[in-house]
Amino acid sequence: MNLLLHAATASCADLLYLGGFDAPDAFTALRVRGKTTALLNRLEFARAQKNSAFDTVLPLEEWTAKARKLRPRAFARHPSAATIATLAAGLRVREFAIPDSFPAALCDALRKLGLRLRTTPEPFPARRIKSPEQAAAIREGNRAAAAGIAAAERLLRRARKTKAGALVLGGAPLTSERLKTAIEIACLEAGALSAGTIAAAGDQACDPHETGHGPVRANELVVVDVFPRVQKTGYHGDMTRTFLKGRASDAQRRLVATVRDAQQAALALLRPGVNGRKVHTAVEAFFEKAGYETKHTAAGSTGFFHGTGHGLGLEIHEAPRVSRANNVLKKGTVVTVEPGLYYPGLGGCRIEDVAWLDGEKPTLLSDYGYEWELR
Amino acid sequence: MNLLLHAATASCADLLYLGGFDAPDAFTALRVRGKTTALLNRLEFARAQKNSAFDTVLPLEEWTAKARKLRPRAFARHPSAATIATLAAGLRVREFAIPDSFPAALCDALRKLGLRLRTTPEPFPARRIKSPEQAAAIREGNRAAAAGIAAAERLLRRARKTKAGALVLGGAPLTSERLKTAIEIACLEAGALSAGTIAAAGDQACDPHETGHGPVRANELVVVDVFPRVQKTGYHGDMTRTFLKGRASDAQRRLVATVRDAQQAALALLRPGVNGRKVHTAVEAFFEKAGYETKHTAAGSTGFFHGTGHGLGLEIHEAPRVSRANNVLKKGTVVTVEPGLYYPGLGGCRIEDVAWLDGEKPTLLSDYGYEWELR
Repeated sequence: MNLLLHAATASCADLLYLGGFDAPDAFTALRVRGKTTALLNRLEFARAQKNSAFDTVLPLEEWTAKARKLRPRAFARHPSAATIATLAAGLRVREFAIPDSFPAALCDALRKLGLRLRTTPEPFPARRIKSPEQAAAIREGNRAAAAGIAAAERLLRRARKTKAGALVLGGAPLTSERLKTAIEIACLEAGALSAGTIAAAGDQACDPHETGHGPVRANELVVVDVFPRVQKTGYHGDMTRTFLKGRASDAQRRLVATVRDAQQAALALLRPGVNGRKVHTAVEAFFEKAGYETKHTAAGSTGFFHGTGHGLGLEIHEAPRVSRANNVLKKGTVVTVEPGLYYPGLGGCRIEDVAWLDGEKPTLLSDYGYEWELR
Repeated sequence: MNLLLHAATASCADLLYLGGFDAPDAFTALRVRGKTTALLNRLEFARAQKNSAFDTVLPLEEWTAKARKLRPRAFARHPSAATIATLAAGLRVREFAIPDSFPAALCDALRKLGLRLRTTPEPFPARRIKSPEQAAAIREGNRAAAAGIAAAERLLRRARKTKAGALVLGGAPLTSERLKTAIEIACLEAGALSAGTIAAAGDQACDPHETGHGPVRANELVVVDVFPRVQKTGYHGDMTRTFLKGRASDAQRRLVATVRDAQQAALALLRPGVNGRKVHTAVEAFFEKAGYETKHTAAGSTGFFHGTGHGLGLEIHEAPRVSRANNVLKKGTVVTVEPGLYYPGLGGCRIEDVAWLDGEKPTLLSDYGYEWELR
């Protein structure tokens, strides 16, 4: 299948996968008859020749000049499309698969120039299957995530409780912002960049994508979710732990224990060939049986209302999902396992680890303890 | 103009601009007859209702269920397209502008359902014009960038030179990696996330997008380019300084002085109504007159071979460019001014500040000294 990609690598993991080369601005790459070619401008050309895995790196400026000369009218309308069409003609190809996310304007312009482009949701199905090297890169991401979680735990342990139930450290309130900054610094020191870090406490944590703001209080559950990108490889870690500083209520203890049990039940089902839907449905049933109902109202959802997990690699969320969707998890798949329960008033709890389905029993690619009640 | 967007905000600044709401996964937003609507799943719904600027936030699950019922065949083929088409029908709209970057597969599927979609390169031309609040947000980004540059300068100042010309700090070689980590930690502490940070020395800096690796040596030019994103607002800073630890050669001194003079010449030309091309051409002429030739060879380019600047805001590189392209810079534009010269053997130098064209003289939104030769 001949392939055409055009994107910045930050927003197109497929392109990063194809060339092993990170560039801040959009560029074009093709795979034709099994050989890969990138078209790069002079800001990237030398670096790509040295460091990328593309079979051929072509200088964009030369091909732009060629297109301007050979297809002046097309070039005036859409220089990039004319340039890509010129290159495709040089390679004697008129038909390409493009990723679903391919930019619509460029797609329209290329079709006008006679190229046949067909979108495909998964240009590289092999991305689902992780090699030992790729699994090691994800493990490295989780080493950074664990360093971040450890930094948050240290701050919580060191914080003092006031009589009013506030947490104070170094003379100032301990806030979600301070936790997030400490996490992100620890990730950087471990060679990874953590964006969108979550350290959300109390009712804030019941909104799973709320990253947290303001003071963290004693005796409330704090969800810490860290998904850093290893700067060297582009692979991610993704781990979550839930803490509480002070003394948990019985209801909080039962909530956390149930989430951890659900996670272990899910892990016990994970093996090559299992359907992600089966794992997810088992978690849903587990929570229901334990008496934790899931409800959806206009004001929001409570209970367990996100997927059990997702593929992890060059993207934080990639195929396959462990959810209601029908997805057979092949040997070599890496997925997160992250059940959670959320009840405003009581709080939220999510525990997330990462499993590599390399054999009958999954190999955990994440490593951090489960002690959560910090006196 | 009715607008349809579908993206994750991390890869679509237009969507962030429209709703003032950051979400990690792709979602749909529309502007119809001047009113904005977002379609968000239950992980985002409550947060979007609370914190976004959308006029209406609709629950994705409800509209998905509606589409499944009303358009079962379309839904089976492409659930998102069927859902968006159902919503568009509810709003009695059949025609939308979409950004050039709109995903091709969704575009194809929506057109098959009868929607007329026309791509537009700049859905929000108003993004070019920064309000005082937006300029302040960019200034905040540059405060973080300056904190990062200061952290790198501190390490360079504290490093000791060995007789062999190496730089050592705390018993270990001072490397690009250590500089980058120090920069990124300082940015985080200033509330901003710095990705792709550049701290490249010697010949590495002659490749403007090489971020730098390995030991930094005495007496070589070190380009430090920092473009952090303020976590609270999503706006960026973008600043560059060039340092040298040790003693510069006459050629290095003349190189740095020429780049700084070129930058000041460019700044002197910047005013509302000027064409970016005029500014860029002036910088090219300035370098040529000073005897700094630009050459392009198969092995790479030397001299001045990138744009003079670019728009800065929710994206690091946004419209308008200050380059050979024909771009009138309107009042309120924010652009970087970053001439540079690169000669392997001698080294690279780039100096970058940020100007807001709010009046006859531009207002600098970046603030950091120009001392560069660190003994």
